This record gives sequence, structure tokens and C-alpha cells, in this order.
Amino acid sequence: MHPGSNTICAPVHQPGSAITIIRVSGPDSIDICDRIFIARRRGRLTREKGYTLVYGDIVNGEEVIDEVIISIYRAPHSYTGEDMVEIACHGSFYIQNTITGILASQGASPASAGEFTRRAFMNGKLDLSQAEAIADLIAADSGAAHRIAISQLKGGFSNEIAGLRSELLNLVSLLELELDFGEEDVQFADRNDLLSTVVRLRDYSGELAASFSIGNAVKRGIPTAIAGKPNVGKSTLLNGLLNEERAIVSEIPGTTRDAIEDTLVIEGVLYRFIDTAGLRHTEDIVERLGIGKTREKIALATIVILVTEAVQSAVEINREVRHFRRTMMPASASLIIVVNKADLAGEDHLETIKNEVITSDSTSLVVMSANRKDDYMVLKKALASASGLDRINETRVMITNARHYEALMKVSEATGRVVKGLETGLQSDLIAIDVRQAIHYLGEITGAITTDEILGNIFRNFCIGK
Amino acid sequence: MHPGSNTICAPVHQPGSAITIIRVSGPDSIDICDRIFIARRRGRLTREKGYTLVYGDIVNGEEVIDEVIISIYRAPHSYTGEDMVEIACHGSFYIQNTITGILASQGASPASAGEFTRRAFMNGKLDLSQAEAIADLIAADSGAAHRIAISQLKGGFSNEIAGLRSELLNLVSLLELELDFGEEDVQFADRNDLLSTVVRLRDYSGELAASFSIGNAVKRGIPTAIAGKPNVGKSTLLNGLLNEERAIVSEIPGTTRDAIEDTLVIEGVLYRFIDTAGLRHTEDIVERLGIGKTREKIALATIVILVTEAVQSAVEINREVRHFRRTMMPASASLIIVVNKADLAGEDHLETIKNEVITSDSTSLVVMSANRKDDYMVLKKALASASGLDRINETRVMITNARHYEALMKVSEATGRVVKGLETGLQSDLIAIDVRQAIHYLGEITGAITTDEILGNIFRNFCIGK
Repeated sequence: MHPGSNTICAPVHQPGSAITIIRVSGPDSIDICDRIFIARRRGRLTREKGYTLVYGDIVNGEEVIDEVIISIYRAPHSYTGEDMVEIACHGSFYIQNTITGILASQGASPASAGEFTRRAFMNGKLDLSQAEAIADLIAADSGAAHRIAISQLKGGFSNEIAGLRSELLNLVSLLELELDFGEEDVQFADRNDLLSTVVRLRDYSGELAASFSIGNAVKRGIPTAIAGKPNVGKSTLLNGLLNEERAIVSEIPGTTRDAIEDTLVIEGVLYRFIDTAGLRHTEDIVERLGIGKTREKIALATIVILVTEAVQSAVEINREVRHFRRTMMPASASLIIVVNKADLAGEDHLETIKNEVITSDSTSLVVMSANRKDDYMVLKKALASASGLDRINETRVMITNARHYEALMKVSEATGRVVKGLETGLQSDLIAIDVRQAIHYLGEITGAITTDEILGNIFRNFCIGK
Repeated sequence: MHPGSNTICAPVHQPGSAITIIRVSGPDSIDICDRIFIARRRGRLTREKGYTLVYGDIVNGEEVIDEVIISIYRAPHSYTGEDMVEIACHGSFYIQNTITGILASQGASPASAGEFTRRAFMNGKLDLSQAEAIADLIAADSGAAHRIAISQLKGGFSNEIAGLRSELLNLVSLLELELDFGEEDVQFADRNDLLSTVVRLRDYSGELAASFSIGNAVKRGIPTAIAGKPNVGKSTLLNGLLNEERAIVSEIPGTTRDAIEDTLVIEGVLYRFIDTAGLRHTEDIVERLGIGKTREKIALATIVILVTEAVQSAVEINREVRHFRRTMMPASASLIIVVNKADLAGEDHLETIKNEVITSDSTSLVVMSANRKDDYMVLKKALASASGLDRINETRVMITNARHYEALMKVSEATGRVVKGLETGLQSDLIAIDVRQAIHYLGEITGAITTDEILGNIFRNFCIGK
């Protein structure tokens, strides 16, 4: 059967809520629901316009199953682009199961995971990257991740891809025009203009692909490590950071303590502390794991907090930082040097530390006491700045999806080959092959080009009812 | 502030579903939502009629928070009877929290548990027993429990109570009319007519109250015990019953195995096996608990399954049943005698057992083998018949709520005193006191008479958003 030609149904919620919604989509959806529904004040559902609510009873023959509110959507103005009905019923398993059973007996088949969104894609209501954004939107647990997802849902990313694609399409049509006149050795396009265009496209697709590392960090949390010698207060520091946070998140219903213990949202950005379970219970990550293991762990971090003590001199701290950089520090990570136990040192000494400990663009210094609640503000600011995500408020497009990353890497490679081909005076028809490949991979992102395998992979990860 | 005069909001679902609904109710609900919403195709929410859906964006200043579908309800045609808006947004915690935050900043206060339903009650959309039926409806996990709840929601029970109440009101007005003419010693009402009316009311309220034991069993599951000597196959029997069931319920998402292990729905009726955890792991409930403890446990049962073996003679089985009745069997319970291991006995012997084992209205006989899947059909039929719930399909009203039970017991007692008063020729004014008391308790059931304490107790048990 052609996808979209039959009518499907599925509950959107797990049983146990006060209210659950059962979605029905397809050409017979309104007819089917009309046969099992008796409106309270109005007449037949089949007479209702789209975007209308109707109150009444779902019945099974003589028996009333539930009082419900029915939402009517008429194609193409619905989520799937088809005629749709949403039944808002009471959320007991019994009711949910009985209603889906009656719907099935009237000819609506159970929807598979993501099938509603898949139909929305098939009917041109959204492209693939927008469909993927919906899953991201639901999963987003920080303001930054949410902002990326909503911008992608709104088509921000699709527009970038469409722009890239149309430039490449222009390019390929120019090249092919030359091929048509191949015998005459005509060049319609100035090779230097072409080259600079393709260099720009290669760089931009490379840049988009590179944004995956930060985009992915936003989505999953920025990997952050806390390092330092024994007894400098690493676990106190982590607990201090998390405790304040916990006071906020403990109000969230359904959030388990375990899941939140090692993550922290600061100014809309999620941080994920590496191997902090051990750190929080035994003081010393180095002792516990051994140097080699510690280095491996710290290598995963994008931000490293190195904890030292205010009883050390500036010279000693600089020496420790230098040693840490040489032996432990991942090359591309940002470093925050925390000079802890400031309450135990004199003003003059602290002033010297502030003046003499060496910082840089990627290395900041925080002098604080892990025992003083107010001091965490400064550390949090340093984290926000180290994350580089203060710029997320700008409308910069960011990749958060591994599938998009892979496609963009291939686009970047293919355009790289085009650049090389142009530079070495390769034949137009050979160059065109690589341009076509880049176009193909861009098409995969938005779904202009799809295979059943790609679609299957994407929608399998959706929940039933979406 | 007068309840109902402010605007409240709350999410209906826990975060984590694909879609969640945020409810807003109160005089400013449409205004408030209009200020944070930009419709896609239509104009202002304030211009929309009731029972309309609108598609658009929830915004916080410039920032788009989510694409949503908004349902508009105009007073009095809404769940609460007030103006109402329901926002269907994506179900992430971040979105849910942000939208309720924006709503709060616009003046909607967070709703407490059950506050929407409480407003519905205050605005006369449903009476108290109907409000309670909603909670029961959501919790109902068998067809029978569901049927009772929906009949109560539909006002079946309220009508019975209203009928009783109006008869008592007639009675009291007759009695008071006599009081007005007290000096003249007039009797407007024939004392014999009065007496027969009150006897009928007393019996009926007593009957309703008595239905609580069965109604409550329907709601919570009919307590069922499996007894018998060691190694007769009790645990095999229980596993056999539950295994078949599990094949059905394992499809239920979110149902934990632990919760279902000891309950079983047969033909829409829920059975709850007493202390079967022990029974399922060690073969012998008697050995495990000791005789005294076993008797205590079995005393809780409404249905007892006594397992014997087909290798016993009919005489031996009759003797065992007799002994079990004397020592263990609760007086009002139904007994199912299972003669197990029928596959080990000859046809003739089984025939003798069927003919000679003594049965009655409340004692049935099932000859079967716990190893044969097909044999369970007969046992399930016997359970259904022992439950007495084959009659539940009839429109008999049943009490499932302890609050209603207590009120009806008091009605029954008060009318009992009226009967006695009439029989002993008590003064009309003294009789009227008891009639008024009965009227009072009936009023408590539907909420015609309420206290804040009663309301608090009822709505505290609702979930947020209902």
C-alpha cells in the first residue's frame, strides 16, 4: 500500500496521565471517528470544519467508553498534511486500549514509531532535518539545545543547506553547458570565479561540519573535567557547583537524582562532568584511576578545571599549570585555573597570584573559596566563557546531528576535490562528478534525496504517536 | 480571593511525552495566552469563538519557544465552566517549564492538585460524586471498574441519591406541616404509608451501602485465595492462570511485571491473589505461614480455590472440603473445588468425582489438569461465576467509594431510627430530626452540602492539571 493512503492511529501518551490523546490520521480518519462518536451539542463530525473542537462520547455500540474532546483537522492543514482527528480521552490504560481497539475494528491500523512525522515529511509539511529537529526539541534540556532545535525546526538550517545546494546546482549547470559545447572548447565560466566560489563552499561546508563538535556538546552537555592534586578541594568544588543546581532541579517532577548528579545547566548551557561519580566520593581522581587512566578521561574534556591552592605561590602555580599542560591537557580544551582556599591566604598574596599567574584566551583564572557560596558566581562565569557558547544567542547555525555531520564532511571532501580539479585544470565532466556528489549529500540532509534505509533509521528513533 | 476569580495554569502531563498539554482556566485565560502567542494563519485569540483550534508560536518577547496548537473554550462551555485555553506543546521539560513561567509572568498562578475539577464542581459542571468518578475512571484497570466509574460520571449514582433525597424531603415537609398545626393534633400523613416509605428508603440505602463490599472489590480486585495440601499443584495452577494473562498484558507499555504478577483480569473483572508471592515461590502456603496465619490470610478472601487431586476418592475430597470449611473457610466467601491432575486418573474415576463431590450455589467443582492449557477456560468460568459479577452488566448502581459508603451507612442508620420512631409513635418533631440527618448525609455525597475539609480531602488526591 502506498504510504499515506491508509488511516493510522496511536496514543500520544503513556497511560497514567489524567488525559491522553489518541491520534488518527489518513483519508478515513474523520469518517472512522464519526462512526464511534456521539456529539453532545453538535451533529456529525463529517460536517465539521477543520480546526474545530467537538465534545461528546466515544461509544462501542450501546456502551459509553468515555467522555472526550475531539479535534478535527482537514488536509492539508494538519501535522501530517492529511485529514486528522485527535481524541482527548481520560488517561487510563483501559480506556486508551479500548478506544484504539474500536478504531482498529473500524479500519484504522496502529501507527508505527514516528509514522505521523514520516507522513508529514512525505506530504511536504517538513523536510528531514526539520523532522529530526522535533526529536531534538523534545529531548532538549537546556536553553541552548532548545534554541538550536527550534531554529532547525523553523528551517534555519534547511535554508543554509538549500543555499549551498543551489550554488552547487548553478555550478554544475555551467559546467554541463560547457560539456554540450565540448568540441568547441568553450569556457562559459571564468575559472577563477568558479574557484573562489567553490573554495567558499568548501570552507563553509567544512565550517558547518566542524560546528558539530560544539553543537553536539550543547545537545549532550559540554564534557568538563576537574583535575588537581589530592586535598585541594576538587570534590568540595564539584559538590558546591551541583548543590546549588540541585536546589533548582529538584522541583522537576520525574527527574531522578541519579540522572542529574553529574550535569549542570549554567545560563542555559549543559555541562557534563567526566567520571565525577568517583571524584565525588573519593577525593582524588588521580590516585583512584592512575595517571594513564586519568589522562584518557581528561582527554575527553572540552573544558578542564585545574584546582590549585592559595597557599601555593604564583610561581608554583605557574609551574603546576605548565606541567599539567605538558602531561594531561587535551590540545583543544579550555583551561580554568581555580586557586582554591582563598580564605586561608592574605590579600597581598592573592593580589600577587592574580597578577602573576599566566592566563590567555583559552586559560582563565578564578581565585575563590569552595566553602563560600558567593564565589561560585565567578566560576560559573568562567565556565560560560570557556564553553564559547555565549555566542549561541547569535543566529549562527550549528550541527547537532551525526547524520548531518557525516553528510557535510562528504560535501566538504567532494568540494575539496573540485577545488583541486579546478586548480589542476581537470576536465569539466570529471569536475562535474564531484559537484554532483556534493549536491547529493546535501540532498540527503533535507530529504530531497532519500532512501528507505535513511528514513527507517530516522523515524525508528521517534516515539509511537509522533 | 474567591475561588474561581483568578486565572490558573498547569501542565496535564509529566515531561517526556512527545506532546504535553498546558491548561489555563479563568477569566483572563484567553487574554493572557493571546499576549504570548502569534497565530500562523489567523488573528488574535481574543477574537476566536469557543471550541476552536489555532496553530502558531508561543513567544517570549522575540524568542520563539515552541510551535503549538491552542484550544479555545468559552465559559460556560468548558471543563471548568470558565474561559479556558489548552496549549498543546512539545513535551520537553524545558518547553513546559518555560511556557508555564511565561504564563505566570503574565498573571496566571500555578494550579494546585485537582483545582480544575474543583472549579468544575464550584461552577456546577459536575457534582462531587461525579468528580470522584473521574479519578476512578482514570484508575480503572478492568472493564467492570470502568463501567461503574463511567456510570457514576454520567450521573447514574447521583440520580439515585437525588431520588432518595427528594423522597426524604417530601417526608420532612409533611412532618413539618403537622408541626405547624401541632396544637390541633392533625396528621396529614397516614402513618402506615409513611412507615412503608421509610422502610423502603432504609432498606435501599442499606443495600447501596452494602454494595460497597462488592463495588470496592471490583475497583481493587476481588480477593482470591488458593489453598490446599502440599504438592497438589497450587503454584502451578496460579502460574498457569497468570501466564496466560501475562501474554496479554506484557504488551502494555509501562506496566511493570511486579505490579501485575498477582492480579488477573478475566472477562473484565480484576482478581487479586492473596499472598501469592510466597505461594508462587514455595509450593505450600500452609507450611510457610503456619495454620493460624494462613487462616487469617484466607479470611480476607471473597473467593477461595481449594486444590485437591484426582488420585483422591470423592469421599476423601468431600471430607477434605468439609474439614476446610470448618477450619479455614470465611463464612461469606465462594468456594471453587479444583480437582487437579485429572490427566493421572481414569475416566470412570473422574466421572465418579463429578457425580459425588458435593457442590452448591456457592460451591463449584472444576476437574482439570494444571498442565493442560485448555483446562483453564473452565476454571476462569468458575471464577467469573463465583465473583457474582456476571450481573455487573446490568445497570445496578454500585458504591466503590469509602466516603459514599460511610455517608450511606449513616443514612441507613438515621432512616432506621425514623422507622423505629414511627413504629413507637414518636413525636413528629423528633422524627424530623433524623430525617433531616439522612438528608444531610445524602447531600454530602453529591456535594449539595459540603465543607472545605471534605473538598480538600477529595481534590487533594487528584493530579496536578486535572
